[in-house]
Amino acid sequence: MKIAFLGTGNMGLPMAKNLLETGHELSAWNRTAARAKPLQDAGARLTLASADAVRGAEVIVTMLSNDAATHEALVDSGALDAAARASIVLDMATVSARLATELTRICEKRGLAYVAAPVLGRPEEAAARRLHIIVAGAPEAVSKVGPLLSALGQKVWPAGDVPSRANVMKIQINLMLSVAIQSLAEAAALGEASGVSTGDFVTLASHTLFACPAYQGYGAAMQAAKYEPAGFSARNGYKDVNLALELARDAPAPLALASVVRDALAELIASGGGNKDWGALAEIARRRAAAPRPTR
Amino acid sequence: MKIAFLGTGNMGLPMAKNLLETGHELSAWNRTAARAKPLQDAGARLTLASADAVRGAEVIVTMLSNDAATHEALVDSGALDAAARASIVLDMATVSARLATELTRICEKRGLAYVAAPVLGRPEEAAARRLHIIVAGAPEAVSKVGPLLSALGQKVWPAGDVPSRANVMKIQINLMLSVAIQSLAEAAALGEASGVSTGDFVTLASHTLFACPAYQGYGAAMQAAKYEPAGFSARNGYKDVNLALELARDAPAPLALASVVRDALAELIASGGGNKDWGALAEIARRRAAAPRPTR
Amino acid sequence: MKIAFLGTGNMGLPMAKNLLETGHELSAWNRTAARAKPLQDAGARLTLASADAVRGAEVIVTMLSNDAATHEALVDSGALDAAARASIVLDMATVSARLATELTRICEKRGLAYVAAPVLGRPEEAAARRLHIIVAGAPEAVSKVGPLLSALGQKVWPAGDVPSRANVMKIQINLMLSVAIQSLAEAAALGEASGVSTGDFVTLASHTLFACPAYQGYGAAMQAAKYEPAGFSARNGYKDVNLALELARDAPAPLALASVVRDALAELIASGGGNKDWGALAEIARRRAAAPRPTR
Amino acid sequence: MKIAFLGTGNMGLPMAKNLLETGHELSAWNRTAARAKPLQDAGARLTLASADAVRGAEVIVTMLSNDAATHEALVDSGALDAAARASIVLDMATVSARLATELTRICEKRGLAYVAAPVLGRPEEAAARRLHIIVAGAPEAVSKVGPLLSALGQKVWPAGDVPSRANVMKIQINLMLSVAIQSLAEAAALGEASGVSTGDFVTLASHTLFACPAYQGYGAAMQAAKYEPAGFSARNGYKDVNLALELARDAPAPLALASVVRDALAELIASGGGNKDWGALAEIARRRAAAPRPTR
Repeated sequence: MKIAFLGTGNMGLPMAKNLLETGHELSAWNRTAARAKPLQDAGARLTLASADAVRGAEVIVTMLSNDAATHEALVDSGALDAAARASIVLDMATVSARLATELTRICEKRGLAYVAAPVLGRPEEAAARRLHIIVAGAPEAVSKVGPLLSALGQKVWPAGDVPSRANVMKIQINLMLSVAIQSLAEAAALGEASGVSTGDFVTLASHTLFACPAYQGYGAAMQAAKYEPAGFSARNGYKDVNLALELARDAPAPLALASVVRDALAELIASGGGNKDWGALAEIARRRAAAPRPTR
Repeated sequence: MKIAFLGTGNMGLPMAKNLLETGHELSAWNRTAARAKPLQDAGARLTLASADAVRGAEVIVTMLSNDAATHEALVDSGALDAAARASIVLDMATVSARLATELTRICEKRGLAYVAAPVLGRPEEAAARRLHIIVAGAPEAVSKVGPLLSALGQKVWPAGDVPSRANVMKIQINLMLSVAIQSLAEAAALGEASGVSTGDFVTLASHTLFACPAYQGYGAAMQAAKYEPAGFSARNGYKDVNLALELARDAPAPLALASVVRDALAELIASGGGNKDWGALAEIARRRAAAPRPTR
Repeated sequence: MKIAFLGTGNMGLPMAKNLLETGHELSAWNRTAARAKPLQDAGARLTLASADAVRGAEVIVTMLSNDAATHEALVDSGALDAAARASIVLDMATVSARLATELTRICEKRGLAYVAAPVLGRPEEAAARRLHIIVAGAPEAVSKVGPLLSALGQKVWPAGDVPSRANVMKIQINLMLSVAIQSLAEAAALGEASGVSTGDFVTLASHTLFACPAYQGYGAAMQAAKYEPAGFSARNGYKDVNLALELARDAPAPLALASVVRDALAELIASGGGNKDWGALAEIARRRAAAPRPTR
Repeated sequence: MKIAFLGTGNMGLPMAKNLLETGHELSAWNRTAARAKPLQDAGARLTLASADAVRGAEVIVTMLSNDAATHEALVDSGALDAAARASIVLDMATVSARLATELTRICEKRGLAYVAAPVLGRPEEAAARRLHIIVAGAPEAVSKVGPLLSALGQKVWPAGDVPSRANVMKIQINLMLSVAIQSLAEAAALGEASGVSTGDFVTLASHTLFACPAYQGYGAAMQAAKYEPAGFSARNGYKDVNLALELARDAPAPLALASVVRDALAELIASGGGNKDWGALAEIARRRAAAPRPTR
């Protein structure tokens, strides 16, 4: 298939590579062009403008860092005006339900289809085609991008006809993940302040009730007090928690746990930790409790 | 070994049975005597007073519902005065670190040893000898009760010489569990208010990042909206979250997530749900968001 | 002076009247034109488009309900393009600091001045020229609108050269007010649940430490359990608390109390109370505590 | 009247002096005896044991720092056993509703009357007989202590026959005060992080909607960033907020704002600020927001 790929960052790059390797024809664009270089060597055509990348593409994949970047690359840049009629915008980034709804409408007006397909997984999983992909949109469009999704992930989770539903589900999952991290952070700091080392606590938790990747991975990071380089930065986590809070604001619905995490992330970023992994929430909890550093 | 077993409720009964079956000699006491009946048929000697049960016992196991009941059964009742010198109090209930410290001191004065050994697991796991047991206390005493612990659980987690450390760890784990449940509840209500059914959300969550028993069990309950009979009641959960908050109060340490769960449980209990499973936190989150009942 | 007045709702209408009475020449616009009618009788010229109102005006006063309405009336409508060079936009509504910054920039490009002058007070105070007005902007522009502000309020609080600073201060005040109301609500519900009537509590509070208008007014409303008609609706309060949270999000800064109020207002609105006075937060606190209705 | 006065600290000392000056006969006890010295010079009889102070007294006033100290001085010390039949215990300290209920019962058994009469005001107001006194208990007993209360405060607020109701009301007021301080702290930090100085903000707030002592006093302290010596220490504030949370726990009732204040006070105390005035909550809010120190 002829594919345009917009956004070749930490996640987009390995995904685009996988599409190339599967045999698709790829034109790629990234705001910082240099980061797309490896794709050229692998056979992709690079463009300096997103509008140039999409010309003639059957599917336009977007994997950009937030709502603003996505809107800019698709709409303000004129890319959607340059897109071929009947082509499909496949938005795989974590963007707001509100943007998904807006883009669905904009695409419809231009005779395009918008499919939301946000993913669960980090760069390693993207590279290994192990992503979980939540997909929602018009059935024919979803069916057409099926082979692409299969080339990118281990499992596709259909979420119905309304694209924004996929975004809601992705936001729910990330909300839960952020709370799980903050919960590890607070419980560990309470332990440290009460004579239990983070090491002992994490070992127990991650071998009993919380024997799942989320707790094991962040638990290990807290045990080692190692938050750099970031797997997922505090700044990105902040963006995602705010997506959940904006969804709640518009519902309207209370969302008390999310607000607690938001505040802790704001504190982490304000104190200079925006580029650390969001597991560094443990440092904020420790500072608040004046707890000693973990004894390993 | 000659064992006194105080507290034969949902958890204590199957544990006491297992000790009998393993060949130990058992005298048992329960405030509501009738609930200990099945043990008599299995060969235990029942007593009407806790002090009578402990006479001559080498190990006094306590599995009572809270601090007050434990203090009453051991101290106010005169049981510790009746206990044989050098016998061991093995407290397996979820009590406060503060009580563990107080009982350690009281036991020492009387020439007894106090070992804290709180457990992770529900009645089914107790019956199946699948409990995880966190144990802390004087090494000789811990070593002496080793065979008992092996008869009761799948794994023993040593937590050092200071008994209260085991309580802190148990409280940390239950704190995390309570937050996990509330996080499912809030995320599900947000979804319902935004067009995503609890069923779809739970299915996704429990097969991806949250593929561990905690989330799977409570997720399924929320999907079915079934909270009775309670596996673990809101009232018991309230007790445990308050144990965490008391630990934090005394540290002192902030504990923001726990306060959110506390408030939701207070609301659940105030509205008449104290005997429901604490998974019914989902109902509170739904009511707050005026979200529709789950569509399954 | 020749003044254009955009937005003649609950607040704008009495303010516009006062300007007319002071002798200013007024053209007025309101989205729902009928609501501006009383101004026509008082001598104002009404227009159907905001762009028509601003033509030839020296000062363009805006008093619209939120960011979107303000942006629409000034920018999207073409009003700023129709405005006379060197005229002043005097924004007296409670809008975001972000919008103030954006409008400052947009005005500058067109050779206009933007002055932010949000007000403290309700419709009664607006009618009685008793508003407090926080004003910030370029000194010459602020000085030029001085006579207008004097005609509208009892006191002007200068807040410097940067317009958005006035918005920040207004948002701070409203944040504190929202917390004060929620604090009355929670304390009253706690009392009701513990045997103290809201009446007794409010009487004590409003005659001792909290003898100021905020607590006295909302205390009396809670005592009477009367929240309709709204002096300031839950929906408007929700808007303002969200302005504070957006400011915090962008700072970034934690803002824990605001999140608590946000959640309570979301619950009030979700349960159908969006048009009630935000003092009805007391009903939410009472429902959460399953507290009895106040015994007067 | 013959009065025993237990607890002559910051508050108790000026109150006891006022009773002496009014012509009452006073025996006084304080844990740290030296602090009662000034009373001896004024004509009081000092005792080394609380039980000695109460012998022969018609009214036993207690003004101790918390529940434990009160229980110790009255019950564990044997003072209530030494008290003359029909004498009245007049508890003016801020203690829990739970303790008031327990002491009411204990006093009844001994033929004594327990009257709860907690006060609003700081040491200066105690010295100036400007306290507000909330009083509850059996009508005859309340009537008998009337002259004493008139000698101590500016106004007496009757709260009914059940002593603990007075404690509930006192706890409600202190809860609101703690929230008001935290609200000033968070709003000021948000301002600092957004370009508005604490000075400008406090000046506006305390001259408009929040023109009452609570906000003016703490606002001025935050403006000056001066929290030592403490008027009311963080540690004492922590005690009071926890009284509110314990009341809520037992109700049960949610109490979200109180939890936010609790966490901030815990952080303040954990970082070494327990003896600072609780207005130092502003420092915690500033640290969390990494906001600059106030520019005055």
